[in-house]
Amino acid sequence: MSEIRKDPIVDRWVIVATERAAKPVELVQQARTQALQTCPFCEGHEDETTPEILAYRQTPAATNGRGWHVRVIPNKYPAVTAQGNSATAGSGFYHQVRGVGSHEVVIECPQHDTNLAELSTKQVGDVLTVYRDRLRGLASDERLAYALVFKNYGALAGASMEHCHSQILATPNVPLLVAEELAGSVQHHSRSGVCPYCALLAEELEVGSRVVLETTRFVVICPFASRFPFEMWVLPRTHASHFEEQDETELTELAAILKSALRRLGAVLNDPAYNYYLHTAPLRTTTMPHFHWHLEVFPRLAQLAGFEHGSGMFINPIRPEHAAELLRAALD
Amino acid sequence: MSEIRKDPIVDRWVIVATERAAKPVELVQQARTQALQTCPFCEGHEDETTPEILAYRQTPAATNGRGWHVRVIPNKYPAVTAQGNSATAGSGFYHQVRGVGSHEVVIECPQHDTNLAELSTKQVGDVLTVYRDRLRGLASDERLAYALVFKNYGALAGASMEHCHSQILATPNVPLLVAEELAGSVQHHSRSGVCPYCALLAEELEVGSRVVLETTRFVVICPFASRFPFEMWVLPRTHASHFEEQDETELTELAAILKSALRRLGAVLNDPAYNYYLHTAPLRTTTMPHFHWHLEVFPRLAQLAGFEHGSGMFINPIRPEHAAELLRAALD
Repeated sequence: MSEIRKDPIVDRWVIVATERAAKPVELVQQARTQALQTCPFCEGHEDETTPEILAYRQTPAATNGRGWHVRVIPNKYPAVTAQGNSATAGSGFYHQVRGVGSHEVVIECPQHDTNLAELSTKQVGDVLTVYRDRLRGLASDERLAYALVFKNYGALAGASMEHCHSQILATPNVPLLVAEELAGSVQHHSRSGVCPYCALLAEELEVGSRVVLETTRFVVICPFASRFPFEMWVLPRTHASHFEEQDETELTELAAILKSALRRLGAVLNDPAYNYYLHTAPLRTTTMPHFHWHLEVFPRLAQLAGFEHGSGMFINPIRPEHAAELLRAALD
Repeated sequence: MSEIRKDPIVDRWVIVATERAAKPVELVQQARTQALQTCPFCEGHEDETTPEILAYRQTPAATNGRGWHVRVIPNKYPAVTAQGNSATAGSGFYHQVRGVGSHEVVIECPQHDTNLAELSTKQVGDVLTVYRDRLRGLASDERLAYALVFKNYGALAGASMEHCHSQILATPNVPLLVAEELAGSVQHHSRSGVCPYCALLAEELEVGSRVVLETTRFVVICPFASRFPFEMWVLPRTHASHFEEQDETELTELAAILKSALRRLGAVLNDPAYNYYLHTAPLRTTTMPHFHWHLEVFPRLAQLAGFEHGSGMFINPIRPEHAAELLRAALD
């Protein structure tokens, strides 16, 4: 049973999900990614995973069989519970709710020995289309307020499986960081009448020094206040609050720019571990004039230390302008 | 030159401190701690460090020489700039201030091959007394609003030096996480007339299941909404907002309970990397009825992944009640 507990002083929620650990001492061992020989995510091992939720394949009849490009399955060790409602519990002084939600794995390709940046643009496009389609699908579950799409690449980024994959974790609450972006952007919008992300894009395209890549519809920047060296944000050039409203043409162009950004990151930093996540509007909301979906990417280099954990401030040893310069110059 | 940049949408500050990195690709290498042979923190190597700010030694005349128990020096690669004022700069759309502040290293003992949990209680008490004395000293610098005391133990916790040490980073702003605790606690207090940390202690002592240790003056708990497996908070039993007001008797008792808590953590998890930080009231503030200083300790086990970074929520695979049970049962 998963519980979502709230800190009594600050707005901080913790999912307590005991199904994910065996013995405490096993937590101490470094994350090891599962090797090729025993990988249940590889084509031909479909019967070793939980039954698929969605897959793109040539022969639709072959559910849970071979022949797929992208495949979505329930996480075998979910952080949240699929069944039931998010009833409140707690002792009076403390507050907690049942950890109800959905935790899915997107297997990005059938073959083991590759990574997202090396897939074809068409295949990356399929992965992005799956994100869109699952966001649309999860919106029909009224218990869920938000679905976070994210990727952990490499053991240092928290990946426990080597095979190319990402995850979608849907929760009954809007995660704090998204709620803060929504609150901050509504404030900017009410002050200025402009979406702050649109204003940011205009500023970045004018200044130029933090722009990594731009296409007709998308821009990749190293943000002004990058928390991490080589942090990148991918944004649609035209205002759009909901990722799930992107059409095929947009997703194809997004696939190309994302692939290029990830290849450059790999070239500059020699294939580093990295994370990305998608910040889009909450499920079942209507178009927002103040909020602009974006994908945030960052390599995992130095460990976060006591200062970052204790202060909520970050120390970045590379100026974002310098990072952008190196990423622009990298071979694609 | 250090800059403190603000994210344009949310309340997130980033220190951009380029003096700390050489080439970008060097960031990729795993943190390696400096080995014994070349350690400038060892007794006898005082001329290899920056000149000391404070030291406890038998013969006070021997400044920057041998014979010390605890020694405080400026960090050789400071995240903030010691000189000047925190003048605002920025491009209009963005906001930044000069990264003015103080970044100090507390060398916790003269010998290399040990760690805080293995020092004598007297020596741990000296380290805590140095924290107190430096907080008092830093309060006289009117440019500084807050001083965060923190410790990184082990490469996985972000330590770049092996020799037993902690750090004090003082900034012109109150860090976000402290500001949030202050805001949350003032809200509780105005609603209930009680310090929420005092209420929390009363609840924990009554329930008992999350209490790890208690003495006359201090309590160690695994907090209800622990972000990390085996997270522990050390709090004074009687209300106290300012750590720097603790007297010798209190610091001696605190040293004993902290040492016991760290030894138990080491016993249960086989000497894990860990961080701790001290949350006390901002510099030059008067007694606060709502806020209660505390020290937060947590081992570094699994990597934070894309979900935590993207949501601000944490996933903890161990119930705090179970962690507390194991820590209570551990040999001291």
